[in-house]
Amino acid sequence: MISVSDTPLHRSSMPSPAMIERPSLLSASSGYENYRGFLNLLYVILGIGSSHLVIENILKYGLLVEFDWPLRFLKDPTNWPSVFLILLINLFILFQYWLEIQLMKVTSVKKLFIFFEIINVSLILIFPVIYIHHRQPNAVGAFVAVCLYSIVFLKLVSYTHINYRCRLVLLRKKHDETNSVVISNGPIVYPNNLTIKNLYYFLLAPTLCYELNFPRTQRIRKTFLCRRFGEILVISSLQYCLGQQWILPILRTLDRPLHHYSILENIERLLRLALPNHLIWLLLFYVYFHSTLNLLAELLCFGDRLFYRDWWNATDLYEFWNRWNTSVYDFCKRHVYHPLVDHYGFSRSLGTLIVFVISAFFHEYLISVPLRMIRPWSFLAMILQLPMGLAVRRVKNENKTYGNIAVWVSLILIQPIAILLYIQDLFYRDFVKH
Amino acid sequence: MISVSDTPLHRSSMPSPAMIERPSLLSASSGYENYRGFLNLLYVILGIGSSHLVIENILKYGLLVEFDWPLRFLKDPTNWPSVFLILLINLFILFQYWLEIQLMKVTSVKKLFIFFEIINVSLILIFPVIYIHHRQPNAVGAFVAVCLYSIVFLKLVSYTHINYRCRLVLLRKKHDETNSVVISNGPIVYPNNLTIKNLYYFLLAPTLCYELNFPRTQRIRKTFLCRRFGEILVISSLQYCLGQQWILPILRTLDRPLHHYSILENIERLLRLALPNHLIWLLLFYVYFHSTLNLLAELLCFGDRLFYRDWWNATDLYEFWNRWNTSVYDFCKRHVYHPLVDHYGFSRSLGTLIVFVISAFFHEYLISVPLRMIRPWSFLAMILQLPMGLAVRRVKNENKTYGNIAVWVSLILIQPIAILLYIQDLFYRDFVKH
Repeated sequence: MISVSDTPLHRSSMPSPAMIERPSLLSASSGYENYRGFLNLLYVILGIGSSHLVIENILKYGLLVEFDWPLRFLKDPTNWPSVFLILLINLFILFQYWLEIQLMKVTSVKKLFIFFEIINVSLILIFPVIYIHHRQPNAVGAFVAVCLYSIVFLKLVSYTHINYRCRLVLLRKKHDETNSVVISNGPIVYPNNLTIKNLYYFLLAPTLCYELNFPRTQRIRKTFLCRRFGEILVISSLQYCLGQQWILPILRTLDRPLHHYSILENIERLLRLALPNHLIWLLLFYVYFHSTLNLLAELLCFGDRLFYRDWWNATDLYEFWNRWNTSVYDFCKRHVYHPLVDHYGFSRSLGTLIVFVISAFFHEYLISVPLRMIRPWSFLAMILQLPMGLAVRRVKNENKTYGNIAVWVSLILIQPIAILLYIQDLFYRDFVKH
Repeated sequence: MISVSDTPLHRSSMPSPAMIERPSLLSASSGYENYRGFLNLLYVILGIGSSHLVIENILKYGLLVEFDWPLRFLKDPTNWPSVFLILLINLFILFQYWLEIQLMKVTSVKKLFIFFEIINVSLILIFPVIYIHHRQPNAVGAFVAVCLYSIVFLKLVSYTHINYRCRLVLLRKKHDETNSVVISNGPIVYPNNLTIKNLYYFLLAPTLCYELNFPRTQRIRKTFLCRRFGEILVISSLQYCLGQQWILPILRTLDRPLHHYSILENIERLLRLALPNHLIWLLLFYVYFHSTLNLLAELLCFGDRLFYRDWWNATDLYEFWNRWNTSVYDFCKRHVYHPLVDHYGFSRSLGTLIVFVISAFFHEYLISVPLRMIRPWSFLAMILQLPMGLAVRRVKNENKTYGNIAVWVSLILIQPIAILLYIQDLFYRDFVKH
């Protein structure tokens, strides 16, 4: 009885490959999960794709790039209202700060100040609507301003809420007249945090949740800054080129309202739009949530860099919404969901519903106000996540990979549907009516 | 001294997010590596991209698909030589089998038979060259035939080598007249393996390395078969569409030899070709190394499914070549590298060089013979991997991510360069000379 692989002679001169029962790595059953290489492939594809776009463009049109955008920005009168709007936000911030100082000082007649605070914070959302409606600025500038106002609104809500809680604790402490030692999680305690510097640090910091003591890094790494800055430059230019070269030609084919086309034609245009739009969205995610927020955090020595969790592995839509924007998620959890559920006794599903409605409101607000056109598409896109999430969860229960694929499909398809609907409505407004 | 987050009241009604110093997940320093989701994104992009291609095509040309390719195949006389060529391979296989049987029987005059074996195996590579040169079949059919001949060549080399080793062990055993118990790694021992059934099982099995006893699975899973078969159908169709829709139009812009274009124009065409070509290559990898080989293995109850390792994470070119085609890698290691280094005392780097030269020869053989055009491009592309590998290894020593990116860049760019050079030469042969 002789077999090949059991003699020393054979072993030494001709090692047979260890042929045993093994699954293929790409089979889900293999349990293999390290696909970091494919992320690098995405980077390479982006790099090669953008180099190609640049060279193609130069060959077609010659070197047209002119660095005149600062000049053009200055010359366009419709840019100026947005600049003023952005500067005006400081009035609301400083008024809220003054109210906080008053609240800290007085001990009895608080309700009036709190009422003013609520009015002031609400005005932050209402004021840009009125202003933009009257002054009709350029939509891009208006969009930037409205984003800024929304962020400041959320930040001031958090600031006010936390300071309110601090006063409550202080009051209860005085009432109980206990003198037990309180361990602080940082050097700053209420009301020492009520300084202009502390407030503006929070307003600049890449978070929506106010804390008296933020985790801080020791120093600013210059190479880190340079890399993030380089990424912002390259990716923004790439997005601009992709938009010009790939998205606009598709949108220009839309010369009638959508229902004048056949269903197949609409599906074709949707699918044609879906991939470049998704690519630009992925780039936007990276350039904003990774490059910009990290740059900001590094400049401010802000320690907590978890601006996003691993949403790309989300196996249902709720997981996606919980992971993809940590700042907003933490804000909603801390200032909306938990107060509603823990303090006011709302049910958990009602709490989730309210969070989604608020989120849908902001999605709509950020689009409708700059376009000066109230349409439900963005609101609906967000609200539809709830029933769709239930459907995806069913898929997920079958197979987690299918759940993840369903999340990607909904991400890729819902945005371009909304874009086409907005473009159609803009078309009606700007071309048909006039 | 009161701080916000240290009272039970605060804790229960408003849990603050755990804000600690945390890195962003996409930072290399975070150590996070689960990007399975991006693999699914690739699938989704492929799905959406191909649906779009199908719908666009239908809108442009109507429903043109005709399932007449079996008919067209039968009618085209240039297809037939390849079919005959493929059938003729059995003569070489059976002759080699007959020689093995003779070698097993006789004990003295072996050298003549071994000489015949070497001649027969060499003829497997030479015969298709002569045949294709004379009969001038369709290049696609010829390519399939030449691939098959190469695979059978490698398999018969392995078969002959292992049987030779078995005889050697048997001889040495008889000579020593030892009767020690030998533990067999399977039920079949030499010479019981010398059956037609055993040989043809090995020839069909998805491996190039002969073993007397292959690991076997218990049963054929029907859903697994259906999935792999579905993948093969869908992905092959997609590759065909991509080739027609994306690659051919680019190649048709090449109406002069390459040096008549400016450098920028050549780079532009190269980059334009690079991405669709790489996409098709990725699909080819999946459909061949995952779907087809798994289908074959499932049908044959073949247990070892590790047809590829995680080449997508390779941080230098040698790692890539070691991982991406396990069958060829195992073959080279077992039948070329180890005999050379361990038995004949070659240095390790000379062994590696010889493996690369043989590999380069086969890359060239598979292209030049079907095209009936001897050009060095494919050979050079493979041989260039050696110096490039050294360069990439330097990059890798700096940063592993950069090494991986360098591997992707070389994968994406080298193939289209070779394709453009071949197309240019075909153009000279078929259009300019005639």
